[in-house]
Amino acid sequence: MSEWHEIPGGVTAPKGYKAAGIAAGLKPSGAPDLALIVSDVEAIAAGVFTTSQVKAACVDYCRQRLQAKAAARAILCNAGQANAATGAQGWADAVESTEILGQALGIPADAVLVASTGVIGQRIKMEPLRLGIPQVVAALSSEGSDQAAKAICTTDLVAKTIALETTLDGRPVRIGGICKGSGMIHPNMATMLAFVTCDAMISPHLWQQMVSRAADKSFNQITVDGDTSTNDSLIALANGQSRTPAITEPGPEADKLEAALTEVCMHLAKAIARDGEGATCLIEVRVSGATDDEAARQIARTIAGSALFKAAVFGRDPNWGRIAAAAGRAGVPFEQDHLRVQLGDFLLMENGQPLPFDRPAASAYIKAAAAGEYLKADTVLVSVSVGGGSGSGMAWGCDLSYDYVKINAEYTT
Amino acid sequence: MSEWHEIPGGVTAPKGYKAAGIAAGLKPSGAPDLALIVSDVEAIAAGVFTTSQVKAACVDYCRQRLQAKAAARAILCNAGQANAATGAQGWADAVESTEILGQALGIPADAVLVASTGVIGQRIKMEPLRLGIPQVVAALSSEGSDQAAKAICTTDLVAKTIALETTLDGRPVRIGGICKGSGMIHPNMATMLAFVTCDAMISPHLWQQMVSRAADKSFNQITVDGDTSTNDSLIALANGQSRTPAITEPGPEADKLEAALTEVCMHLAKAIARDGEGATCLIEVRVSGATDDEAARQIARTIAGSALFKAAVFGRDPNWGRIAAAAGRAGVPFEQDHLRVQLGDFLLMENGQPLPFDRPAASAYIKAAAAGEYLKADTVLVSVSVGGGSGSGMAWGCDLSYDYVKINAEYTT
Repeated sequence: MSEWHEIPGGVTAPKGYKAAGIAAGLKPSGAPDLALIVSDVEAIAAGVFTTSQVKAACVDYCRQRLQAKAAARAILCNAGQANAATGAQGWADAVESTEILGQALGIPADAVLVASTGVIGQRIKMEPLRLGIPQVVAALSSEGSDQAAKAICTTDLVAKTIALETTLDGRPVRIGGICKGSGMIHPNMATMLAFVTCDAMISPHLWQQMVSRAADKSFNQITVDGDTSTNDSLIALANGQSRTPAITEPGPEADKLEAALTEVCMHLAKAIARDGEGATCLIEVRVSGATDDEAARQIARTIAGSALFKAAVFGRDPNWGRIAAAAGRAGVPFEQDHLRVQLGDFLLMENGQPLPFDRPAASAYIKAAAAGEYLKADTVLVSVSVGGGSGSGMAWGCDLSYDYVKINAEYTT
Repeated sequence: MSEWHEIPGGVTAPKGYKAAGIAAGLKPSGAPDLALIVSDVEAIAAGVFTTSQVKAACVDYCRQRLQAKAAARAILCNAGQANAATGAQGWADAVESTEILGQALGIPADAVLVASTGVIGQRIKMEPLRLGIPQVVAALSSEGSDQAAKAICTTDLVAKTIALETTLDGRPVRIGGICKGSGMIHPNMATMLAFVTCDAMISPHLWQQMVSRAADKSFNQITVDGDTSTNDSLIALANGQSRTPAITEPGPEADKLEAALTEVCMHLAKAIARDGEGATCLIEVRVSGATDDEAARQIARTIAGSALFKAAVFGRDPNWGRIAAAAGRAGVPFEQDHLRVQLGDFLLMENGQPLPFDRPAASAYIKAAAAGEYLKADTVLVSVSVGGGSGSGMAWGCDLSYDYVKINAEYTT
């Protein structure tokens, strides 16, 4: 029994938000490349950013801004140039972007957060940006989420969006999100970006905690190629326009909101994994029986990120040994005699030993063939148990195909 | 001025060793699959083994044996079945192998170390093994290293061997090694294995320290696909037959021996990376300016293991942004303003900012084309500096090609 249901509208589903996306001439292709999300009133703002030592100017800017004040009115995002490894001039460009948008919206420059995605080492093309900002402001609409979702894409094949509604104290509260990303990183076409809006009233400290925890269970649990970007950013706004009671401390209402927020982030994260470069399917890994949740998540991430397992899934080979080996090297202690591996409904390993499968009995061949057939599904589910502990966790990835190599070998200077 | 020179002979180059390799019928292909290395006298023995929680029976056996007594007479290695995830019966098979070989050689069973490589979850085929052991003993020869090197291979395209000679107190000392491995792991055709022989006289404690440090600078610095095996083993014997003075404490003579040992291990490790599944070239990453050597090695490993950078090298794309991004996510703090990236002789990034390269100036195009041309070399050298520290380190990998995906998607049950 879910405590929320899905609704249309993306980041403009919650009350008091507008969004827009336009083609400002930043991408050589002429595709939409400038997105804007605006809250009618000042919103509480929380963020989670890349842990890389090589960071984009927008990441440094947002981190500093949110440390000084956990609130914002607008998020501006350009696609085409990552503005990473661009030094002092890149920083100046980010600051100028906030000033131009602040003027166009009639709000302080420091109420603006910024994000960039595109080629590392390239500054934002400032001439088209200066001309584009008034246009994107003019295009703002309470139905503009889809346009914004398209304008933040780079190598993405599909735009990614979700909105959920739940109730707090009997009144509706909504959370919406859009994101982009087709690899954890594409250093020339960089980045995972996610923007979440919410109309709940909540204290900044609680909101940042919820957003960080939700990121740990979602965006931090996906991997396409193990490469973390210079620009990775999740920014989440909560503007209080639902007029529901303010959430100022942990409790059932806070838990309910966090559950919906986590669901939004998981949906977006899975959409990124499914749209991974060259992917033909989504891989979901569920780990249970670990000493704690973080240990389970670590094992799940390692399996989802194993190049050998990913290649086996692409080849539709029910190669349980690669799952067991990846679990074993995750850096988390467990007794190998307790290892249990299941692929969909097929139990492949129990008590650390393979079940009859490779052996020349007719039933084993039938099982191998059926498991291979299962791998042709759109979503491949791997369930692993490592003992009797209460820790559990999930991770998502995609298979490793010829197209991944093609995209990244031929995406050339 | 090197303190050693290369000599032929592999693991039988040092005095007092014999080796052999035969086809015992363990591999379905009928290729050589049983190798044996024997020291004429008891040798000091040191080992470094996989850190995976899922370990082969042979790994558990050797670790226990070496803890009880750091000495051995023989190393027996089968290829075809990894004897990993095989439970109590797998352990019994490993023990029986040592007993049969001990009888055949007329030595105690506990003077035998064992290693396995092949399909995870498959026990060693004991019938052919029992018949094969007397044959491989009969084939022992002081020129048998090449046969042994071939018999430990699985998906390897080439056998890998080296021997060096140096002098201690004016007398020759030799170190030889063979290894196998074509990925850090191939869970169905598992493992990196390396066997090193030496005729120096050295104390067990010092020898284990040297072997561990040499492994950290060599085998632990290579990556083909980031997957660590269930069977990874480095076993090194030192039998004292050079009749050189016993090395019992650190000092110049110990340093000299360790330098040669490290060179042997690096040669073997690079040979594995160059023979990585689907590889078209060897990638060598040199990192300097870090706070310490381990930090530098960590950055080097991360760059060498980046799927995106590896794919760029396969595409002969001088994509410096992927090198910078990989360095940034290595988990090692540094100032991005100090980052310097060089590809061969081409300086691509300095002070954390790209040098003119992507820009439409004729000289930049010429530089890009020349750097792309450089990537066609058999060995690609990446040099990265992250600051003013004294820490440095190297790592090796290979490019990510269509054939990697093909080998691992089509290597099927």
